[in-house]
Amino acid sequence: MTNRICRLFGIKYPIIQGGMIWCSGWELAAAVSNSGGLGLIGAGSMYPEVFRTHVKKTKQASSKPFGVNIPLLYPNTEALMQIVIDEGVKIVFTSAGNPKTWTTWLKERGVTVVHVVSNSKFAIKAEEAGVDAVVIEGFEAGGHNGREETTTLVAVPKVRQATILPVIAAGGIATGKAMLAAMILGADGVQMGTRFIASVESSAHQNFKNAVIQAQEGDTMLSLKQLVPVRLIKNPFYERVSQAELNGESKEALQTLLGKGRAKLGMFEGDTTEGELEAGQIAAIITQIEPVEHIIQNIVLEYKVAREQMSHVKFNIGE
Amino acid sequence: MTNRICRLFGIKYPIIQGGMIWCSGWELAAAVSNSGGLGLIGAGSMYPEVFRTHVKKTKQASSKPFGVNIPLLYPNTEALMQIVIDEGVKIVFTSAGNPKTWTTWLKERGVTVVHVVSNSKFAIKAEEAGVDAVVIEGFEAGGHNGREETTTLVAVPKVRQATILPVIAAGGIATGKAMLAAMILGADGVQMGTRFIASVESSAHQNFKNAVIQAQEGDTMLSLKQLVPVRLIKNPFYERVSQAELNGESKEALQTLLGKGRAKLGMFEGDTTEGELEAGQIAAIITQIEPVEHIIQNIVLEYKVAREQMSHVKFNIGE
Repeated sequence: MTNRICRLFGIKYPIIQGGMIWCSGWELAAAVSNSGGLGLIGAGSMYPEVFRTHVKKTKQASSKPFGVNIPLLYPNTEALMQIVIDEGVKIVFTSAGNPKTWTTWLKERGVTVVHVVSNSKFAIKAEEAGVDAVVIEGFEAGGHNGREETTTLVAVPKVRQATILPVIAAGGIATGKAMLAAMILGADGVQMGTRFIASVESSAHQNFKNAVIQAQEGDTMLSLKQLVPVRLIKNPFYERVSQAELNGESKEALQTLLGKGRAKLGMFEGDTTEGELEAGQIAAIITQIEPVEHIIQNIVLEYKVAREQMSHVKFNIGE
Repeated sequence: MTNRICRLFGIKYPIIQGGMIWCSGWELAAAVSNSGGLGLIGAGSMYPEVFRTHVKKTKQASSKPFGVNIPLLYPNTEALMQIVIDEGVKIVFTSAGNPKTWTTWLKERGVTVVHVVSNSKFAIKAEEAGVDAVVIEGFEAGGHNGREETTTLVAVPKVRQATILPVIAAGGIATGKAMLAAMILGADGVQMGTRFIASVESSAHQNFKNAVIQAQEGDTMLSLKQLVPVRLIKNPFYERVSQAELNGESKEALQTLLGKGRAKLGMFEGDTTEGELEAGQIAAIITQIEPVEHIIQNIVLEYKVAREQMSHVKFNIGE
């Protein structure tokens, strides 16, 4: 008998490394899985054949369970799904789309399916679609984000009430204490993205990793709300977008300003001036680029210590 | 030996009822203090003589410690502070201003001073000013809010790292589980506002109380960011403001649209169409208007049960 998320995926710790564009290739996914968590290859920024290579390399680098994250908004989704089956991937996280589209197809082929949601209404829809678990991602999370701006602290208990599925909390979590807090609020496990950008094994450009560990409170902001809301580290590109939004410019003007390839430019090629740098608020407490194994061991240790410290005088109230 | 917040204020539970305009008069403050928490009279919406009456009535209605919240942005602050001393109020929470202005003056007169901050930088300034504790209020909180949009989950550990003072977490907290989660993240106690709007004893208009318990995820939004950011329940007034902001209208135009007395109109007079309804995201999990004593007893019970449940199989990881 153990934690539901550990049981669902066959892993040691209920720590999932979020699938992120440009940051989570085979090296990161394999390192996380080898360290007892669940590594995810982020397919969102990969052409199908690149994705296949990453899946193959992950299988070579780890004998542990791993998964892939497939955002459902790109035209190549079908090709990616076929590779999932061809290569025997057993775990798929879907996001940014309707969970009904692929869940049955994947489950009929023996794949465990998790869907990322931003509120309890979508959690119910994911449960109805037949997924095995949901990730609830709060406002503080990096990258693409819900329009309702509900934070992890509020969203996790709402989703816990709404579904019987295992719940994975994401957004604002990078430590063992935050993991324990999220689990008290109702989560069965956690997903961390930003914490793993600043790892040795992530494929983020060194400049982007440095930007993450230097970011302080207030240094990320939810941006581009009229297109698709995305949390970015503030940089000159962000400032231009922000000014355009303040000026009330049209969606079309914003789309032109955004252009193409901004995320790759910033996160993978390291242009921290003109590129998009997607990271979460929790960057403010991350100060070091570390090997994945250290990160996970530290989180687990802090979690266990925090759990034992419930007998601390601070927690004695009303006696 | 007990919890630092309980010791600082001489109260049974480290639960502070946030001082709120139009909602927290003597009846609410006295009920919270009589139930073992710390009730605060919200002076922000009171003329000095009205404030004096509320202080006197609280003293008559409760022999337990209570406090007042004084936002430092109104011209009548000096008059309010003089009443604090005249009436022997022992606890003052200040907000929306520089903690240096009044802290020494109050402490020389034997008053315990707490300052509300929105990030760790301001927490350090409050410590330097000599306050006895800080409230760190996250993005999800109702009413006026910081510009950096840092959520409680991220801000609490940052403030915990930055100061040796007792830390009170606010924003997104309305249950015993959230209280325990906040304390694991580093808080010594919690402040709840929205939870107490929806109490029998709050002076909020019944229509506003009903709006709070009906609100779901996404039904509050941080608004008026170019003036002073404030979290409101979405209503026709909010929609007009929001549209004006999207159109890139000037601060002056927004100020004209806001006009005067919107908060009183909505929260105290019950005009839920044209008034401002200040509430936090956590309204989404509040479904009942209850007597304060029930609210506090339920929170404490849930807290204690959650604390005992650390031995649940869910929390066993890596074994």
